[in-house]
Amino acid sequence: MEMVTGNMVAAIMEEPMAPLVVRNMPVPVPGKGEVLVKMEAAALNPSDLSMLTGGYAVKPRYPFIPGIEGSGTVVGHGGGLLARLRMGRRVACTSSPGGGGTWAGYMVTSAAKTIPLPTETTFEEGASLIVNPMTVVAFLRILKGGRYRAAVNTAAASALGKMLIRLLKREKLPLINIVRRTNQVATLEEAGAEYILVSSSPGFEEKFASLAERLEADIILDAVGGSLAGTLISKAPPGTRFISYASLSGDNISIDPKELLQQNKSAGGFYLATWLASQSLTSTLSDISKVKRMISSELATEVSASMPLSDINKAVTEYRKQMTRGKIIIKP
Amino acid sequence: MEMVTGNMVAAIMEEPMAPLVVRNMPVPVPGKGEVLVKMEAAALNPSDLSMLTGGYAVKPRYPFIPGIEGSGTVVGHGGGLLARLRMGRRVACTSSPGGGGTWAGYMVTSAAKTIPLPTETTFEEGASLIVNPMTVVAFLRILKGGRYRAAVNTAAASALGKMLIRLLKREKLPLINIVRRTNQVATLEEAGAEYILVSSSPGFEEKFASLAERLEADIILDAVGGSLAGTLISKAPPGTRFISYASLSGDNISIDPKELLQQNKSAGGFYLATWLASQSLTSTLSDISKVKRMISSELATEVSASMPLSDINKAVTEYRKQMTRGKIIIKP
Repeated sequence: MEMVTGNMVAAIMEEPMAPLVVRNMPVPVPGKGEVLVKMEAAALNPSDLSMLTGGYAVKPRYPFIPGIEGSGTVVGHGGGLLARLRMGRRVACTSSPGGGGTWAGYMVTSAAKTIPLPTETTFEEGASLIVNPMTVVAFLRILKGGRYRAAVNTAAASALGKMLIRLLKREKLPLINIVRRTNQVATLEEAGAEYILVSSSPGFEEKFASLAERLEADIILDAVGGSLAGTLISKAPPGTRFISYASLSGDNISIDPKELLQQNKSAGGFYLATWLASQSLTSTLSDISKVKRMISSELATEVSASMPLSDINKAVTEYRKQMTRGKIIIKP
Repeated sequence: MEMVTGNMVAAIMEEPMAPLVVRNMPVPVPGKGEVLVKMEAAALNPSDLSMLTGGYAVKPRYPFIPGIEGSGTVVGHGGGLLARLRMGRRVACTSSPGGGGTWAGYMVTSAAKTIPLPTETTFEEGASLIVNPMTVVAFLRILKGGRYRAAVNTAAASALGKMLIRLLKREKLPLINIVRRTNQVATLEEAGAEYILVSSSPGFEEKFASLAERLEADIILDAVGGSLAGTLISKAPPGTRFISYASLSGDNISIDPKELLQQNKSAGGFYLATWLASQSLTSTLSDISKVKRMISSELATEVSASMPLSDINKAVTEYRKQMTRGKIIIKP
């Protein structure tokens, strides 16, 4: 066991819907199989926002330190083979349910939730190495496994959306990108998108229906929910599979049962933790190497700003306002 | 080729939403691979009502003769091995898309859409041998194939609902039966139902949630859609599969995307024709023998009235009013 004693600064959510409070608290102590990571960079993801508003799958117990993902150096461990092996390594890491988060000077997490960083990967890159890249690589596995012909993605101007554009382009799989505003089109074209539809523009439904039919799109990856999702399901070709991976609108999806029973459409969800638990170790390790290989190319995250932990409330507000402008990285 | 010439009486739908007109018309002529069935009994199913209101998967071209299912004797054929083999046989039969229906003196259909009746099976029993029994047997296959622990069925007082109660009882698979009105409980208890919930009664949602959790119900078979379906999806345990097999309410289902992405629930549909097309011949033949074996027991249909074809509009009105009172059989 190697321990670090003393205090650290952490962003703390003291009660539901409250602003975050930044204060000093003792550095946590790792248990068996756990490591202590000195945080160097932390990401803000849509799932962090759900966590802050209480909409996340894992319900927090207050007070808690938010932050699902980040990077840093392992400076302590509580015993166990993997934890000992990680000692001194630069890692990408995610928080453990019920434990502390990455928006702090230090975090304790399961050693299994750390991935050693290649030497050439910066902490900034490493801070967004897991959630979005592993999700996009999982989508590719789903697309190939189900022999889908063409995919649809919503909230396509997100960090994840851009990764998906680059990855599917490389795989020569057609992707229909759906964004809300016309001013998001240019950034998608830069990322290499071939098919872009603006959901707020006139004639959107008909354009989507005819493009989806022409490309034989048969899978919808949806981060929005609500009426957009309902429209896509009803306008997509028969047999289309709908997969929800986020619920940014917060609204329910209205589905005509006839779409399910007569048109053979289906709906399900994608949740990274559930997905990883269902995969073999071999396929997860192969996905991790793929992510490491592509972290500066197809799976790169554009960082728009770095902010100190003391500015966490400002960072959250800015990110919430404009999620598609690029990632905000917190430097604890 | 063997032909019948002359006229027959048929119920005809001349335009959308019009009442049926009963009139004389020439007996149709079977083409290659088709048989001419002299109809002895015809069923009224929920799918017939959808067909009449234009909500069915196969959009009719007007005028048309409705009636998806019935029984009779093969009195003509248009050539082809199977069609010739059926000549003179008593059969259960379904209509062919785009062809005539069973609410007529004679029907031409594909020989593949006829099933010879066992000697001891009456025409009345044979008139409901295919749609409901084959669906229920398919449900059993789905339940066993997916190793589901307990099922939920809505519109449970229907003819199909009662078959499902008896079949799953025999298989010792728990079934939660959901009906709309308290006065439907007794008839379900008679059929052997163990778990019955009334959706209009106070506390229904909580009762459903706790019963579903206790029985570990993980599949919902839904014939209703609308708000009931939405409630069941949200109150069912994580991982539950929802399958729509009819849309009696005609209303959309509202689903919180979090049910899909965080709770690993999923939604799909069951449509008999699509299902049969996806199954091997061996498994379909084995299901047909099972149906024939159980047509007077587990898969029996309770007939509440026989009416002549001339009363077809009265029959439709009565059936629409009270689908759960028992089947109405039309005697052409």
